[in-house]
Amino acid sequence: MSDLYERARELDADDPLAAVRADFVLGDGVYLDGNSLGALPAHVPGRVEDVVRRQWGELRIRSWTESGWWTAPERIGDLIAPLVGAAAGQIVVGDSTSVNVFKALVGAVRLARLADEGRDEILVDAATFPTDGYIAASAARLTGCEVRAVQPGEVPDALNSRTAAVLLNHVDYRSGRLHDLPSLTAAVRAAGAVSVWDLCHSAGALPVGLDEHGVDLAVGCTYKFLNGGPGSPAYLYVRRELQDRFDSPLPGWNSHAEPFGMRPEYEAADGAVRGRVGTPDILSMLALEAALDVWRRPDVSVDAVRAKSLALTDFFLECVAAYVPQGRVEVVTPRAHAERGSQVALRCADAGEVMGRLIAAGVVGDFRAPDVLRFGFTPLYLGFAEVERAARVLADELS
Amino acid sequence: MSDLYERARELDADDPLAAVRADFVLGDGVYLDGNSLGALPAHVPGRVEDVVRRQWGELRIRSWTESGWWTAPERIGDLIAPLVGAAAGQIVVGDSTSVNVFKALVGAVRLARLADEGRDEILVDAATFPTDGYIAASAARLTGCEVRAVQPGEVPDALNSRTAAVLLNHVDYRSGRLHDLPSLTAAVRAAGAVSVWDLCHSAGALPVGLDEHGVDLAVGCTYKFLNGGPGSPAYLYVRRELQDRFDSPLPGWNSHAEPFGMRPEYEAADGAVRGRVGTPDILSMLALEAALDVWRRPDVSVDAVRAKSLALTDFFLECVAAYVPQGRVEVVTPRAHAERGSQVALRCADAGEVMGRLIAAGVVGDFRAPDVLRFGFTPLYLGFAEVERAARVLADELS
Repeated sequence: MSDLYERARELDADDPLAAVRADFVLGDGVYLDGNSLGALPAHVPGRVEDVVRRQWGELRIRSWTESGWWTAPERIGDLIAPLVGAAAGQIVVGDSTSVNVFKALVGAVRLARLADEGRDEILVDAATFPTDGYIAASAARLTGCEVRAVQPGEVPDALNSRTAAVLLNHVDYRSGRLHDLPSLTAAVRAAGAVSVWDLCHSAGALPVGLDEHGVDLAVGCTYKFLNGGPGSPAYLYVRRELQDRFDSPLPGWNSHAEPFGMRPEYEAADGAVRGRVGTPDILSMLALEAALDVWRRPDVSVDAVRAKSLALTDFFLECVAAYVPQGRVEVVTPRAHAERGSQVALRCADAGEVMGRLIAAGVVGDFRAPDVLRFGFTPLYLGFAEVERAARVLADELS
Repeated sequence: MSDLYERARELDADDPLAAVRADFVLGDGVYLDGNSLGALPAHVPGRVEDVVRRQWGELRIRSWTESGWWTAPERIGDLIAPLVGAAAGQIVVGDSTSVNVFKALVGAVRLARLADEGRDEILVDAATFPTDGYIAASAARLTGCEVRAVQPGEVPDALNSRTAAVLLNHVDYRSGRLHDLPSLTAAVRAAGAVSVWDLCHSAGALPVGLDEHGVDLAVGCTYKFLNGGPGSPAYLYVRRELQDRFDSPLPGWNSHAEPFGMRPEYEAADGAVRGRVGTPDILSMLALEAALDVWRRPDVSVDAVRAKSLALTDFFLECVAAYVPQGRVEVVTPRAHAERGSQVALRCADAGEVMGRLIAAGVVGDFRAPDVLRFGFTPLYLGFAEVERAARVLADELS
């Protein structure tokens, strides 16, 4: 066997997160699509069964209080908070990422206009996952703004006195590029605009530092590196200092100061709860809560995950360079650690067909049109031997 | 025992839906809160377990296609459609009721303005469940409209050339009053406005007739009489003739004509799919799909459910009249069948305390501030003997 094959065994033997894999249900293949849908944590089915059979089936309506359903959005928000560098009380879980982008962007424009009514432009990452751009266009239309697409690196130059809000992705969904959140957030703030970060591809994979870097608003999904399950609810972060001015475009009864008062006038609740809308989807939400248990393990931390993520992607790139014929693929993901998320994107003209064959061979990544092979690396359950094997299978399919 | 006790036994013996009860998990008490959270259908836990263990745990990302996750919102919409009198292809499931009210109302205003740009008023049921009013205010603010609260019966007089949209509840959440959907919808249409009906308290309890009566847009939840589980996703109906002009304020990638094209420009999908937003909450959604199986039984139909609903509420009112001291409660729900939903609301000053004692005694209804005892009657799993027993316990607690 190759040197890389041996190296993989050594890296696995030295992996401080190796034991975490047993907390997940994994099959024979190599699952490199945890950045699309995280694998099932082994204890989740039992927890979901309890939610369904006992909490719903036996307690029924009483579970809204007795099983903690009512407070789940903010309670689970507080479980996510340390994973993205936020103190408690600033994150609320619920709705889809798209809906949260809408809340955040309309809220951001309104915040910016409190200081300067005339601001009427929303800057959006030109390479964004499309839904963010579509929702930004809708938010702009409804608030009398215009959207301008800019590359994240060009945001500092694009900011001006018209800029109300800036919507950026922490990690690009296609290329896997990690953007410079601290400096971009500071630039947005210095221009008097409000920052909105989409953390879908970074939360649970690397340190985010929302509080530390003064991010204003952030959203993210929970079914990728947080392993919350298919379509598990997204979340909204509103920086504490902005909460009393956050003015949601979706002021549903769950965000009312007195939701069971059934009062005809809306009065926004204090704190993160203000980001809630309607009745939360309890089954999906409590599956997520259970999935977050893995972060309670003493051996699991965001820093440990990040260290292993970089080691995994470094090693994958090394294996690809060694096994795949020169020039057959172009590495899209940055080599520099400071610019890399937890995925590797490779470009080749026949990416769609190649991914089909890879999946048939048990190596599951995904295809992003028109020409990207996307491989996600979830350090909680992925080992180096699998990475080496995936690269070998990839090389076979590309030859 | 009383005559009513005997009558209850006879009514149960003659109940064509009596056998359906075995399809649900019920305890020793009397559950009269199915209009808040429907009881657990007995086969749902097994189906949810399959979704979690096999579809998520084993197939993982492949389930988006192989387990039909991607098409679930419109597939389940087509299961709800016949229950509300809609042909297939007009209902999509997803998001909360509040979020769907927002889509519907902004969409309604935009539809009205296609014919008459100047329309700038939204009429809202003055007794509405609060979230509808809060969301209407937000939709109005974002579209340059004003909201005017009117009693549903006064809508025909309130309509004028400024009216863009009218948001009404089919059944009032507090009083249980059933509003006249056919005539109100016709009046709204005649005024050139767009109708939006909230079916939360009628769908699954009585015939709605969306297509027959020419309703434009409708929303509803699925956790009450449809028994979809806590926070199961809501739905949006867009009448077929309006679909190509429906312009959603939440144009997420799931509503794109080519969602995996990842194109920067938004192009709305045709049909009901246009009402989708982001990634659907699969666990909650597929629990709902399983729950809807009960409607496939040959003995279950909306008409049979409605007939039994009226018989149950008639009988409850008769028992209350016989058992409860005269003047102790006021019956809020209309006596006329044409004006009654599937609940009975009783007013008394100490309703909050009374409901607490009732629940402790195993009769579960709910309290709606400030003074309403609310009892919901789900014909699929409720029997007449339970109704008689609930009235007896109520009379004891009120004495």
